[in-house]
Amino acid sequence: MKLGLIGAGRIGKLHGEIVTYNLPGVDIKTVADIYADQAKEWAEYLRIANLTTDYRDILRDSEIDAVLICSSTDTHAQMIIEAADAGKHIFCEKPIDFDIERIRQALRAAEAARVKLQIGFNRRFDHNFRKVREVIENGDLGDVHIVKITSRDPAPPPIEYVKISGGIFLDMAIHDFDMARYLSASEVDTVFAQGAVLIDPEIGKLGDVDTAITTLTFRNGALGVIDNSRQAVYGYDQRVEVFGSKGSVEVKNDFPNSAVLSTADGVTSEKPHYFFLERYKTSYVEELKAFTQAVTRDEETPVTGNDGLQPVLIGLAALRSLKENRPVAVEEILA
Amino acid sequence: MKLGLIGAGRIGKLHGEIVTYNLPGVDIKTVADIYADQAKEWAEYLRIANLTTDYRDILRDSEIDAVLICSSTDTHAQMIIEAADAGKHIFCEKPIDFDIERIRQALRAAEAARVKLQIGFNRRFDHNFRKVREVIENGDLGDVHIVKITSRDPAPPPIEYVKISGGIFLDMAIHDFDMARYLSASEVDTVFAQGAVLIDPEIGKLGDVDTAITTLTFRNGALGVIDNSRQAVYGYDQRVEVFGSKGSVEVKNDFPNSAVLSTADGVTSEKPHYFFLERYKTSYVEELKAFTQAVTRDEETPVTGNDGLQPVLIGLAALRSLKENRPVAVEEILA
Amino acid sequence: MKLGLIGAGRIGKLHGEIVTYNLPGVDIKTVADIYADQAKEWAEYLRIANLTTDYRDILRDSEIDAVLICSSTDTHAQMIIEAADAGKHIFCEKPIDFDIERIRQALRAAEAARVKLQIGFNRRFDHNFRKVREVIENGDLGDVHIVKITSRDPAPPPIEYVKISGGIFLDMAIHDFDMARYLSASEVDTVFAQGAVLIDPEIGKLGDVDTAITTLTFRNGALGVIDNSRQAVYGYDQRVEVFGSKGSVEVKNDFPNSAVLSTADGVTSEKPHYFFLERYKTSYVEELKAFTQAVTRDEETPVTGNDGLQPVLIGLAALRSLKENRPVAVEEILA
Amino acid sequence: MKLGLIGAGRIGKLHGEIVTYNLPGVDIKTVADIYADQAKEWAEYLRIANLTTDYRDILRDSEIDAVLICSSTDTHAQMIIEAADAGKHIFCEKPIDFDIERIRQALRAAEAARVKLQIGFNRRFDHNFRKVREVIENGDLGDVHIVKITSRDPAPPPIEYVKISGGIFLDMAIHDFDMARYLSASEVDTVFAQGAVLIDPEIGKLGDVDTAITTLTFRNGALGVIDNSRQAVYGYDQRVEVFGSKGSVEVKNDFPNSAVLSTADGVTSEKPHYFFLERYKTSYVEELKAFTQAVTRDEETPVTGNDGLQPVLIGLAALRSLKENRPVAVEEILA
Repeated sequence: MKLGLIGAGRIGKLHGEIVTYNLPGVDIKTVADIYADQAKEWAEYLRIANLTTDYRDILRDSEIDAVLICSSTDTHAQMIIEAADAGKHIFCEKPIDFDIERIRQALRAAEAARVKLQIGFNRRFDHNFRKVREVIENGDLGDVHIVKITSRDPAPPPIEYVKISGGIFLDMAIHDFDMARYLSASEVDTVFAQGAVLIDPEIGKLGDVDTAITTLTFRNGALGVIDNSRQAVYGYDQRVEVFGSKGSVEVKNDFPNSAVLSTADGVTSEKPHYFFLERYKTSYVEELKAFTQAVTRDEETPVTGNDGLQPVLIGLAALRSLKENRPVAVEEILA
Repeated sequence: MKLGLIGAGRIGKLHGEIVTYNLPGVDIKTVADIYADQAKEWAEYLRIANLTTDYRDILRDSEIDAVLICSSTDTHAQMIIEAADAGKHIFCEKPIDFDIERIRQALRAAEAARVKLQIGFNRRFDHNFRKVREVIENGDLGDVHIVKITSRDPAPPPIEYVKISGGIFLDMAIHDFDMARYLSASEVDTVFAQGAVLIDPEIGKLGDVDTAITTLTFRNGALGVIDNSRQAVYGYDQRVEVFGSKGSVEVKNDFPNSAVLSTADGVTSEKPHYFFLERYKTSYVEELKAFTQAVTRDEETPVTGNDGLQPVLIGLAALRSLKENRPVAVEEILA
Repeated sequence: MKLGLIGAGRIGKLHGEIVTYNLPGVDIKTVADIYADQAKEWAEYLRIANLTTDYRDILRDSEIDAVLICSSTDTHAQMIIEAADAGKHIFCEKPIDFDIERIRQALRAAEAARVKLQIGFNRRFDHNFRKVREVIENGDLGDVHIVKITSRDPAPPPIEYVKISGGIFLDMAIHDFDMARYLSASEVDTVFAQGAVLIDPEIGKLGDVDTAITTLTFRNGALGVIDNSRQAVYGYDQRVEVFGSKGSVEVKNDFPNSAVLSTADGVTSEKPHYFFLERYKTSYVEELKAFTQAVTRDEETPVTGNDGLQPVLIGLAALRSLKENRPVAVEEILA
Repeated sequence: MKLGLIGAGRIGKLHGEIVTYNLPGVDIKTVADIYADQAKEWAEYLRIANLTTDYRDILRDSEIDAVLICSSTDTHAQMIIEAADAGKHIFCEKPIDFDIERIRQALRAAEAARVKLQIGFNRRFDHNFRKVREVIENGDLGDVHIVKITSRDPAPPPIEYVKISGGIFLDMAIHDFDMARYLSASEVDTVFAQGAVLIDPEIGKLGDVDTAITTLTFRNGALGVIDNSRQAVYGYDQRVEVFGSKGSVEVKNDFPNSAVLSTADGVTSEKPHYFFLERYKTSYVEELKAFTQAVTRDEETPVTGNDGLQPVLIGLAALRSLKENRPVAVEEILA
C-alpha cells in the first residue's frame, strides 16, 4: 500500500515514522508540505521518494491508495472533499473542523465517493482505554452508570496556539469527549461545563479557561464527568473509570517504570510520562495499523466521520454552557 | 468525664462501645432511648449504670458533662437547645436538621450557653482523608484547583428510610459536601447536580435519584465534583483526589488486606470493606477522642456548628439544582 | 473470665490494655511484676484490682482461670510448669526458652495438666498473613513450591539486648520461622543461613550478624527463603509471598494511609508503619481473643506448645549453619 | 552500518526485525542460516538482500561492519574467534559457551583483534531494572546489603531442550546471575543452590531441577537470593528488589494494561505478560541500539566479554552446590 502524507509538522512526522518503522508493506510515497524545504532532511532520512509543496500532487498520483491529512485544522474539510473526489482513502487528524456545516460536507463527500475515512482519535487504541472498552463490551460492568475521565496536560500550550485552537474544549477536551462516547457506547445528550482561570491569566483574557469540569448526560441514561487542567506539574495525567450496575473498572496513569524507592525520607516513585508522545506512542501505531487494515480488508474504519463530528458538537455545547452558565443540549448546536 | 448517650440505635451503640473500649477515663453514665427495653441487654453488657426512656434525666444529672445526641434527625435541634440550656457539652450526629432556621436556633443556643458543639462528620478523622487535608495545609499542593470525591454505598437503604432521609443529597452526599469544604478549606459558592434513577425505580417514584454527579464551585476559585451511587456491588467506595498548582494528592479505597492472588485465571484481590462501619471504624474513635479532648482542654471542637450547617445548605442547593436543572448559588438557599 | 498477668514490661502492658479495652467479659484480676512499683500507676489507670511482686499469688488464686506469661524469657519454662501444676491455662510469650530440654519439660507439664497452652506468635493473626494462609488452605495455590518472607526491623535493638536475646535468629527471625511453618503447613527439614555484619560492627563482635538470608527446605518438598535486616531505615518491612503449582499470593507491607502525592519533584507516599506495635496492633488483639475463646470453648489453641518448640529448633539450626557454613538438618539439633 | 545476522531462529529473527524497524541507518545485509530455505520468506519480507547457508560469506564481506551471532550455543565461541579474526564487531547471544576455556579463547580473540564484543544480556536494558541500577549508582540506597531476584517462566521448555540447555542454572538463571552482578555492582564470591523437582518429574530424571533458590554472597559483602521456577501458571514473573543502608528499591512485574475490575465477585486485573518476547520487547531494541552506538562511537560495549563469562562461572558453581549440597566459591570453578 502506498500513502501520501499531507502536512509534515510534529504529528505528520510522527505518522511518517510509524509507517516507515512499524508498518511493513506500507510506504509513504510522497510528502506534501507548504514548507517542503523544512521537511527535506527528514524525508530523505526516511527514504521517502517524493517531496512536494502541492498536496494535489498526491491526489493526482494514481499509485497512491490513501492520504494522511496532518495539515492545519482549517484545511482538513477541504482536503477530505478533494481526496474523496480523487478516490483516495483518508486518515484525517482531529478535529475535522470547527464548523458543523463544513464537517458535514466533508463527511458527505467521503460517503459519496465510498472511500474509507478515519479520524485521528488515537486514544481509542491505547492499551488501557481499549481494555476498559472491552470490559464494557463484554458486559462485565452491566449497564454503564458513570463515566469519569481525568485529562490533564503537563503545561499550557503557547498563547498563540490558544488563540486559534478553539480553546480548552475544542483542542484538548475534544479527545475526552470522544473517549466519553467510546466508553459509554452512547451519544451525549447534554453538557454542563464549569471553568476557571487558575493557571494563566492570559488564557482568561482570550475568553478561554484553563481548568474545567464538564458534566455529561448520555442518551442511555448514564452520567459522565471530565476534569481538565492545562497544567499538571507532575506530568501528563490520563485516567478513566467507568462504573456500572455490575461493578467498576479503572485504569491508572502510565509511568516509565515501576520502581519504588523507600528511604528514611519517604517512599517515592517515578513521575508519569511527560506528555502525549510518550504516553500514547503505541496508540498512534495501532490507529494506523487499524486504518491500513480497514483499507486492505475493505472494512469500516474504527473511528468514523460521525466519530469526528460528535466531539465537535459536544465541544461547542460545552463552550455555550460555559458562557451561559446552564446545561446545553447537544441538539441545540445542530438547531 | 461522664457522658449521657441519647439514642441507642446503630450509631448510638457504636459510640457507646467506643467510649467504653477506647476512651479510658470517659464513661457513659446514662443511656436514654424511647425504646429503652431494647437497649437493656446491650447496656448491661457494657456495664452502663443507668437506662432511661427520658433524655431529660440526662440533662438534669449534674454529674454528666456532655451528651452524645444519636437520636433521629428530627429531634436533634430541640435536644441541642435543651442540652445547651442545661450546660452540657454536645456531640450531635449529622445532620442537625433539614430546616435552616431550626439549625440556626440550635447553633445560637449552643453559642449563648458557651458549651462545646461538635457535629458527627467522622470522615474528617479518617486516616486517609486527614492525610490529604494535611498535605493541603502544608502547602504541598499550592492553590487548590480541583477537588474530586467518589462516594458510593454498597446497597440502597430501605425505601422507608429514603422517604424520610431527605434523599441522596441530604442523607448520603452530605458527608461529601462536608468533605469538599474540609479539603478545599473554602466555602461552596454554587452547586450543579445531575441525577439519574438507574438502580431502583422506587427511589425515582419518591422524586429522589440513586446516581448523581454534583459539580461545585468554591469561593476560593476552585472547582469540585462528587460522584455518588447508591449501589456499588463490589462494596463501599470512598476516595478523594485533590489537584492543585503544585501537584495532586490521591487516596485509595480501603481493603481488609493487601493479598494479591495470581493464577491462570487472572490476578485477584480482596473487595473493599463492605460499608461504613468497617471502613470508618477508627474515624469514629478519633472523632470522640477529639470531642472529649476539646471539652477537657476547653478548645474549639474540630467540627463546629457552622460545619453542621453548611453541608445542609449545599444539599438543599443540590436538590434545587436537580429540580430546576440549573446551577444554584448556596446564597439562594439562605435568601 | 479472670486472668493474671505476669510481667508488666512493654509487651505485658500491651496485653493488659488489650484485655481491658478489647475483650469485654475478660478481666485482668492481678498483675505480678518483680518491679511492681513501676507498674502501679499503669495498673490503677486500667483499674486492675491487685498488684504483686510474687507471680505465685496469681497461681494460688482459685478465681483466676488463666495466666499471661510476659516476663523475661529465662523464666518462661519454669512458670509454664508451675502454672500448669496450678491448673491455669497459659498464654506464654515467645520464645518458650532456648534450651530444648526445658521447652520439652514445659510442654509435658502443660499436657499432663491438660491446660491450654498458647505461644505468642501473634503474626499468625495478622490480617494479611492470615489471608495468605487461607488462600493456601483453600487450595487456591495448589501445592506450595516456594515460601518467601521479608522481615526487616527499623533499627537494631540495644547492644545489651543482643547479648542476651539469642541473636538475630532467635529473637527476630524466630517469628519468620514460625511464619514459614504456618504458611507452608509443613515442618522444616533443613536450614542454610548466610549472614553478614553490614549495619553495626558491635553486633559482629558478639558473634551475631545483622543481615541474613536463610534458605529452608520443607518436609513437603517446598523451598523457603527469609531475608532479615536489623535496620530498614524506611521503617518496619513485613511481607510474604507464597508460590505454588496453581499460582502465587503476595501481601504488601502496611502503611498508615494510602495518600499518593504527585508533584514536579516526583511521586511520594507514606513510609510504612514504624515498628511492630503499630504494624501488628490488631494481631495482638486477635491472638488474645483466640486464646480466651479456646479456653472458653475448650478447643485447641491455634498456636500450640509444639509451635513454640519448632521455631527454636530452626533458629538453633540456623545458628549452627551460619557457624559451620553448611546446610543443617533440624533433626541434628534434636540429636 | 551494515550487519550480518548468523542464525535465523526465533531470537535471530527478533534481532533482524528490530534492526529493520527500529534502527534507522542500520541494515542487515546478509543472513546466514544452515537452513537458509526456511528463512527465505522472512528475509524477503524484511527486504534483506542476501541469504546464505555459510556464515563465512558474512565474515568475508568487507562491507559488513558487525555480526549478530544468534546460532546455537555450541557454535558461539568458534564464531566469535573467526569474526574477530575477520575484524568484525560482535554481538553474541548468551551464553558464550559452557566451557570456561573456550569462553576465554573467544574473549582473547576479540580482545586481540580489538573488535567490540557485546553479550546478549538484554535485561540490563529493561526499563525497570535499568532504573534500579540507576538508583544504586546514584547512591540513593547507600551500600547494597541484599539483592533479591524473582524469575519464573510461564511453562517449562520442551524436555529435548532441557537435555542440551545446561539446565535451569545455565539456560534460565544465567540471566539472573547477570542481573545479580549488574545490580550489586560486585562480583559473586560464593553460591549455595537448593533445588527441587516439583513441576515435571522428567526434568528430575535428567538430573536437573525445576524449582530453585540460590543464595549468593558478593565480594562487597552483600548477600543475594534468586528464586526460580520453570512454571508460573499466571505468566512470566520478573521482579527485583535491592535493599541497602539508605533504603530499598523494588520493581513490579510488567502487565499489558493497568485495568482493575471490581465486581461482586472480587477485584481482578490483567495477568502479567506471557513471556520474555512481550516482557522484554523494548530491552531487545535498546541492547542493539547500545551495541551499534558503541561501534559507531568507538566506546566500550555495556555488556562485555567478562560479563559473558561470569554468569557461566556462577551457574557452574550453582550446579556443583546443588550436587554436593554445600556452598561453593566461584573461584573453585576456575581452579
